[in-house]
Amino acid sequence: MSKFKRSQRIAMMVMEFLFSANKNFSLNYFCEKYDVAKSSVSEDLQKINKSFQEQGLGMIVSNIGASGGAYFKPSISKSETQKFLETLKNKLQSKERILPGGYLYYSDLIFNPKITNYLGLIFASRYIDEEIDYVLTMETKGIPIAMATANYLNSEVVVARRESKVTEGAVVTINYVTGSTRRIQSMSLNKRSMQPGKRVLIIDDFMKAGGSAKGLYELTKEFNCIIAGIGVVIDTEIPQQKMVDNYFSLLKLKKVNEITGEIEIEIGGK
Amino acid sequence: MSKFKRSQRIAMMVMEFLFSANKNFSLNYFCEKYDVAKSSVSEDLQKINKSFQEQGLGMIVSNIGASGGAYFKPSISKSETQKFLETLKNKLQSKERILPGGYLYYSDLIFNPKITNYLGLIFASRYIDEEIDYVLTMETKGIPIAMATANYLNSEVVVARRESKVTEGAVVTINYVTGSTRRIQSMSLNKRSMQPGKRVLIIDDFMKAGGSAKGLYELTKEFNCIIAGIGVVIDTEIPQQKMVDNYFSLLKLKKVNEITGEIEIEIGGK
Repeated sequence: MSKFKRSQRIAMMVMEFLFSANKNFSLNYFCEKYDVAKSSVSEDLQKINKSFQEQGLGMIVSNIGASGGAYFKPSISKSETQKFLETLKNKLQSKERILPGGYLYYSDLIFNPKITNYLGLIFASRYIDEEIDYVLTMETKGIPIAMATANYLNSEVVVARRESKVTEGAVVTINYVTGSTRRIQSMSLNKRSMQPGKRVLIIDDFMKAGGSAKGLYELTKEFNCIIAGIGVVIDTEIPQQKMVDNYFSLLKLKKVNEITGEIEIEIGGK
Repeated sequence: MSKFKRSQRIAMMVMEFLFSANKNFSLNYFCEKYDVAKSSVSEDLQKINKSFQEQGLGMIVSNIGASGGAYFKPSISKSETQKFLETLKNKLQSKERILPGGYLYYSDLIFNPKITNYLGLIFASRYIDEEIDYVLTMETKGIPIAMATANYLNSEVVVARRESKVTEGAVVTINYVTGSTRRIQSMSLNKRSMQPGKRVLIIDDFMKAGGSAKGLYELTKEFNCIIAGIGVVIDTEIPQQKMVDNYFSLLKLKKVNEITGEIEIEIGGK
């Protein structure tokens, strides 16, 4: 006789899957934890899978065999993504967000866990099959999005810093040219932070000419790691020619008019 | 006849609660979404509550009345906290972590979402009744912990920066004295980032003399906000006198010996 009723067991399994996305749990693990037969666990997994799909979060991928297991594969539907980006776009287009110089204020959105979780889910859905070991970003505003993405991918975050700190030990530093202002800047990464041969997803909040993405790209190569993708939340229409190809962006900033207060953003950057 | 079976409905409700910790859902919301009677929802909530408690994550607080609702109140048990901190302590005490100058390398831990989620859960458990509006931190390493904490508290993160950026608009800047090296440094916060009268939880990864916590404290006062607490992951035994009182820390760093490789950390800082 099991310690838990089915619905209670299912509730607990959902918690475990959500806490450890993209991590395989053996069927035996569940059998032992809940003291039930494999056939019951299999049935549970089917029900949980339906619920994940209904909720629009992804699916439970099961492998029912002797060495069987199951994992939560995050995946957000196109329509859910569209709905979320529509809301985000509308928030971003509020004219109070225009800063002197025509910049856009959006830190409040990037650092809101509700929004960040969604952004992470969207990026993870896109790169879930790429077996990402590290999500690499640049301090500061890329960090929350990288954390949320890594959470769904079951990987770790590595953060490049603008200046190397005495408290950080040996670092690898590269110089790069910022695409828009053509200034030379540097970024550093702790020597210990990435093992060679691993697969890296570069995530950032904003891309204008792509200078810092290019810097992160070069840094990844210095560590002999493989670049599996580049994802940014917002890119700009101008300049059209970016310093990196093959990136994926969610929103495209087309126009900011400081005088009229007009902001034009398009869903589905690149 | 409901659209979903009980176990499937429960699975979906668990997802909603976990995605929106500390947020109240009305009973009507669940009744309409799943097309079931209030009595069924109440029963579901009881089952879900048991599962949350069994899993050691907290509880579902229900208010069964005309305007009734329920929310997930995160709370980690003392024994679970102890177990997690024991593991973290052992990882931190590995002598390969000692950097030149006697600093400790721990970025890999702080930026690992699994570890960060736990840290967030521990801080949220402590401050859940404080009605926190903002979790305030200092770039860079405080950010992941602040995000995880805010996620469980249903609040937003605000990040103070070492230098003000042209892309950030008007900022409030204060100067502060770093406690350990007695240097003057500054930190800036966007003027838009906090509304007056709100309740602020300060979170950081490390505290030596408490200079930056003191800076964040002063900054909070400049915004006419209320300091509801200060939480840090690691504090140091020396100096004993910190620049802020009333902080809460998880681990205390007692000794780092660069020559012998000995690191001594104690659970339950302050």
